[in-house]
Amino acid sequence: MAGSVTEMENKQVVLTEYVTGFPKESHLAVRNGGKIQLKAPQGSVLVKNLYLSCDPYMRGRMSPPKAGGDPNFASFTPGSPIQGFGVGKVVDSGVAEFKSGDFVWGVTSWEEYSIISNTKTLFKITNTEDVPLSYYTGLLGVMVVGMPGVTAYFGFHDVCAPKKGEYVFVSAASGAVGQLVGQFAKLAGCYVVGSAGSKQKVELLKSKFGFDEAFNYKEENDLDAALKRYRYFPEGIDIYFENVGGKMLDAVLSNIRVHGRIAVCGMISQYNLEHHEGVHNLAAMIYKRVRMQGFVSFDYFARYSELLDDVVPYVKEGKIAYVEDVAEGLENGPAALVGLFSGRNVGKQVVAVAHE
Amino acid sequence: MAGSVTEMENKQVVLTEYVTGFPKESHLAVRNGGKIQLKAPQGSVLVKNLYLSCDPYMRGRMSPPKAGGDPNFASFTPGSPIQGFGVGKVVDSGVAEFKSGDFVWGVTSWEEYSIISNTKTLFKITNTEDVPLSYYTGLLGVMVVGMPGVTAYFGFHDVCAPKKGEYVFVSAASGAVGQLVGQFAKLAGCYVVGSAGSKQKVELLKSKFGFDEAFNYKEENDLDAALKRYRYFPEGIDIYFENVGGKMLDAVLSNIRVHGRIAVCGMISQYNLEHHEGVHNLAAMIYKRVRMQGFVSFDYFARYSELLDDVVPYVKEGKIAYVEDVAEGLENGPAALVGLFSGRNVGKQVVAVAHE
Repeated sequence: MAGSVTEMENKQVVLTEYVTGFPKESHLAVRNGGKIQLKAPQGSVLVKNLYLSCDPYMRGRMSPPKAGGDPNFASFTPGSPIQGFGVGKVVDSGVAEFKSGDFVWGVTSWEEYSIISNTKTLFKITNTEDVPLSYYTGLLGVMVVGMPGVTAYFGFHDVCAPKKGEYVFVSAASGAVGQLVGQFAKLAGCYVVGSAGSKQKVELLKSKFGFDEAFNYKEENDLDAALKRYRYFPEGIDIYFENVGGKMLDAVLSNIRVHGRIAVCGMISQYNLEHHEGVHNLAAMIYKRVRMQGFVSFDYFARYSELLDDVVPYVKEGKIAYVEDVAEGLENGPAALVGLFSGRNVGKQVVAVAHE
Repeated sequence: MAGSVTEMENKQVVLTEYVTGFPKESHLAVRNGGKIQLKAPQGSVLVKNLYLSCDPYMRGRMSPPKAGGDPNFASFTPGSPIQGFGVGKVVDSGVAEFKSGDFVWGVTSWEEYSIISNTKTLFKITNTEDVPLSYYTGLLGVMVVGMPGVTAYFGFHDVCAPKKGEYVFVSAASGAVGQLVGQFAKLAGCYVVGSAGSKQKVELLKSKFGFDEAFNYKEENDLDAALKRYRYFPEGIDIYFENVGGKMLDAVLSNIRVHGRIAVCGMISQYNLEHHEGVHNLAAMIYKRVRMQGFVSFDYFARYSELLDDVVPYVKEGKIAYVEDVAEGLENGPAALVGLFSGRNVGKQVVAVAHE
């Protein structure tokens, strides 16, 4: 095909309209986006998308635009493909850093082929000596060394600053980020409790991810009492990795220890509410000297090599487990993404667009 | 009187019963505590109290005891004198660090004479070369280089980590801590807006303390809109020095800038509510990467000399102003303390027990 340019049909998932409240599948549509030339313009990369990541923060991008927002979290455009993290293969490159055949992960669009012009959030998947390439091109690439990995690794190590022996609580603990945080916490010598939304997920936390304890928050009338039940938590929680917000945050604030740290990664319980629930126990932050800090993975991409150096050996030794929930085919993308908000997924939700 | 021991009557302010809701003057009583021997037991210091500091955090100590609390903030004991910060003069000393005639500040009791056994929170007032002694024995001692000074100085410089040109907002800005934070912020080259609860206080902020702008929160129906009105704030608030909590915190979270910092010093609007107001806008912390951090002055006492080195020259040059509201006599202590919670005081509320 040298010298010629191939054209391909390009299936896409587009936002049909802005969302208020809970997103429904009808807010997304699968359509044929027309033909795309498999040629990267100068300064861009043309990628064949393999796996797309479904992440709770994407809900915010389905809402109408707000003034002064972060461009990384700008609203999607109705009628255009939605964006998110994904793993792909470079088909053609108009930049020096990538070449045809490279496997990459980063911000892409929900379609079969994407022209990526912002290559600052695109990373080459290397290190094929230490870890089988299939790990990277498969889901471990998206998870452990991709966006959830960056989020969990730097959120836990950098924002939470854990010390050996500390007491850690993780909410939405079986999710993409939570399952890694729990494992990083165990590797750091902490005692870890997780919460999740089903018996099956709670079992996973204990049997697969090595959490010391876990509970199903849907079975608890009193989250404060639930937290106090765990062996070390009556002394207080040193670190809370926050993925849900609302009542769980209030319960944690009632059980936080002096100099406690709360990494605010997400608040999935709130994203679909028109008016967010009130959090009432913030005054505990004063006398307990609590540091609560929001963060986003984008800020840590420059430190990506630290994660690789630290985590790849564990992956190689089989010391990091991961559980994924794979929706096969772009057609099943809308259901997979919307399912996040009812907790339908077990583990990291991914859409497999193609396998190679 | 060498060799003899003088006895004195010792007037006290005691808590009559634990408080729920707003404190009333009847929750405190002035009584004759009987005779006290003006002799310090070994390991303690006997202090004649001169000025007592009225601080919002004292409200928490009027509530019934809670399990697992910080001993620095333990509940007062009904029938016993309440405690707080104060300035006094050593009458007799049973420790080497203090001698009779020294002026000191630290944690003392609301009475004419106190035996202070915990001398870790007692500090000698030195540095009489650079600043007139009267400054220290008077209110500037309590304010600038005492507890409010430690709170404002380390809360602003350490917790908020200000950079020149940043946009700072201070609530309860004419209070003991707020007025100093505003001045430290101006000295650090920041743009500073303050809120307070009367026209007179708003005037003070602008005319006396050098705030760039100030507003009366009681005249604002929409705090969000109020904050957006200020010259630089549409770009967002870099630093919020939180003294009030509740609705003001929500308004700030709606106007916070990326990488904003919130130092949680106090939440006076909440202390008298049986159920604290809900704060709804915490999800803004995520995408704005906001750090919100509680702190207490006790943690910074070890770094007290930094404050002296940095601030005393400004005091000497007259570059730091202070406004105090002095209640004369221990009899007026209860009204002064309770008045904090309706904002009756203008500036730092102090009770003058004696002047020498």
